[in-house]
Amino acid sequence: MTSKDKFFMKLALQEASKGGIAVYPNPRVGAVVVSDGKVVSSGYHKTFGSPHAEFNALHNIDKNISNATLYVTLEPCNHHGKTGPCMDLIDPKVINRVVIGSRDPNPLASGGLELLKQKNIDVEIDICADESRQLNRRFFTFYENKRPYIILKIASTMDGFIAEDNGHSKWITNVDSRDSVHELRSSCDAILVGRKTIEKDNPSLTSHGKGKDPKIIIIDKQNRIKKSASVFKNDPIIFSGDRLTNDPHVNIKYILDTLFQNNIQSLMVEGGGITFSHFIDSKFFDELHVYYAPKLIGSGLPLYHGRKSLVDNLELKIHKVQRFKNDIKIIYYKN
Amino acid sequence: MTSKDKFFMKLALQEASKGGIAVYPNPRVGAVVVSDGKVVSSGYHKTFGSPHAEFNALHNIDKNISNATLYVTLEPCNHHGKTGPCMDLIDPKVINRVVIGSRDPNPLASGGLELLKQKNIDVEIDICADESRQLNRRFFTFYENKRPYIILKIASTMDGFIAEDNGHSKWITNVDSRDSVHELRSSCDAILVGRKTIEKDNPSLTSHGKGKDPKIIIIDKQNRIKKSASVFKNDPIIFSGDRLTNDPHVNIKYILDTLFQNNIQSLMVEGGGITFSHFIDSKFFDELHVYYAPKLIGSGLPLYHGRKSLVDNLELKIHKVQRFKNDIKIIYYKN
Repeated sequence: MTSKDKFFMKLALQEASKGGIAVYPNPRVGAVVVSDGKVVSSGYHKTFGSPHAEFNALHNIDKNISNATLYVTLEPCNHHGKTGPCMDLIDPKVINRVVIGSRDPNPLASGGLELLKQKNIDVEIDICADESRQLNRRFFTFYENKRPYIILKIASTMDGFIAEDNGHSKWITNVDSRDSVHELRSSCDAILVGRKTIEKDNPSLTSHGKGKDPKIIIIDKQNRIKKSASVFKNDPIIFSGDRLTNDPHVNIKYILDTLFQNNIQSLMVEGGGITFSHFIDSKFFDELHVYYAPKLIGSGLPLYHGRKSLVDNLELKIHKVQRFKNDIKIIYYKN
Repeated sequence: MTSKDKFFMKLALQEASKGGIAVYPNPRVGAVVVSDGKVVSSGYHKTFGSPHAEFNALHNIDKNISNATLYVTLEPCNHHGKTGPCMDLIDPKVINRVVIGSRDPNPLASGGLELLKQKNIDVEIDICADESRQLNRRFFTFYENKRPYIILKIASTMDGFIAEDNGHSKWITNVDSRDSVHELRSSCDAILVGRKTIEKDNPSLTSHGKGKDPKIIIIDKQNRIKKSASVFKNDPIIFSGDRLTNDPHVNIKYILDTLFQNNIQSLMVEGGGITFSHFIDSKFFDELHVYYAPKLIGSGLPLYHGRKSLVDNLELKIHKVQRFKNDIKIIYYKN
């Protein structure tokens, strides 16, 4: 990797990051075309179903240039999805070198790299691969780990309780914090809770108008939740019966496999404490969002039901800290 | 208050804020002299024992000006301390109006306002008083509430434990977090802990070279701490015996009265959980510093031993959030 390649790939990454949640479930991708050391065109993937970054970067360039380099943050696709394969757009008479951020983990879309080589185009891969992967954490996790990208969310008092002893938890956090939860829901394909959360709070689990509503997933081993619960308005998927074992980790694995097969790329786990703890202990999670309200209650339903020591490493890194008036939200990434 | 007065007082506050911890236990004070609508001089109190802000602002001005206004964030003093009274410096032939941020709560130093009036100088008070008080929270709390300014500090796992069940707490937080605690110690006159913290951790409770060491205060009702404990190297003050009752709130009041009489302007309370909880419940505190390490242990010594409900209001406002690698520190102010 030359420093020049890195420089232009960073421009392509900047392009990619212009694509927001609207590209979902596609990855965010950016591209720049460089000729004689100068950027002659750039583009990014704007919304799901719209042209890919490569198309946006390539379709307007002056066809008289040659020996140009295409920098693209993700391997150009080689399949007919909502748009034609990007591969067809790359003309070796114009582009004689393609520099790729990272390979496409989606088996349907990948293979572009090999085709480029067949076209006698020089190909370089893994330039700023980490940045490209970070930009599309959900997408890479889904295809590489064959499970949804998992966000655990919990709202706690300062002393680690998610409800009073009587189960009462309305409201630990303030309205601004709760709004941010609804926004997060709208960015996820599905939301998962345990039976007790339904019985205790009777939540709707919608995005409360902040965007699309996630699919609702409930773990209810013995099918005990009454059909009058609010979530039934939104056609939830219930995991129960013989498909579940007495080992919560086996159950989580089974649920995640099922969700993967149903193309659920992102899953938000919203508790309660037992479900949260099972996910923590299974290590099946990618982000942990903890809200702390400025309250101390001294007794109640604990945030975490497992047992660990101070030397146990959860591999958490602070990604971001947000304030909602006097509540605080800490977003950790799992390494 | 005119908007002009507010404008110049804000400049004086900016001057005041240049004074750092070096002025302690004095308050931070700033002053500007305005003649014909223009700032002709400014000054601030730089270090304890050095000239006051008024002196620094006044001693260099051109004596030929007249009808000037002095803006000073705190009532000019009228006593012989480390320096002469500021009052003597204010010449009515030069300064015919004094605008004061807030009155001096120190009975030894106050009275300047009345003397200014006797000199036939126009006086206006309480201009940006809140800002002046915020700048000197410790100082105002000490003189007005007749007790030290109290900072409660606690280091917790994400789920609200300050130690494992066996009492082991080394280390919940990382070395950067602990360094910040040592710095905070060096800014406080005294540090208070309960007996169990000494027995459990045998801490030195020094500032570990970050600055001056605070006076060490220990609550040990039955005089049970062994004289071999590390803290005895630093001549701690032990509260024990008949002066303490079975009511922790009465004891806290007694300790705070004693510390006030001994001129302890700021007190850091470093636990353990029981001492922390007694201070929380007594409402005798001004700041709460909570460190969260990215750990979950599920069982251990709790952060808080009291009992409250979710509707109880601790009156906490987030003042600042700091990151120390993957630890987080939240500083709350009590209203």
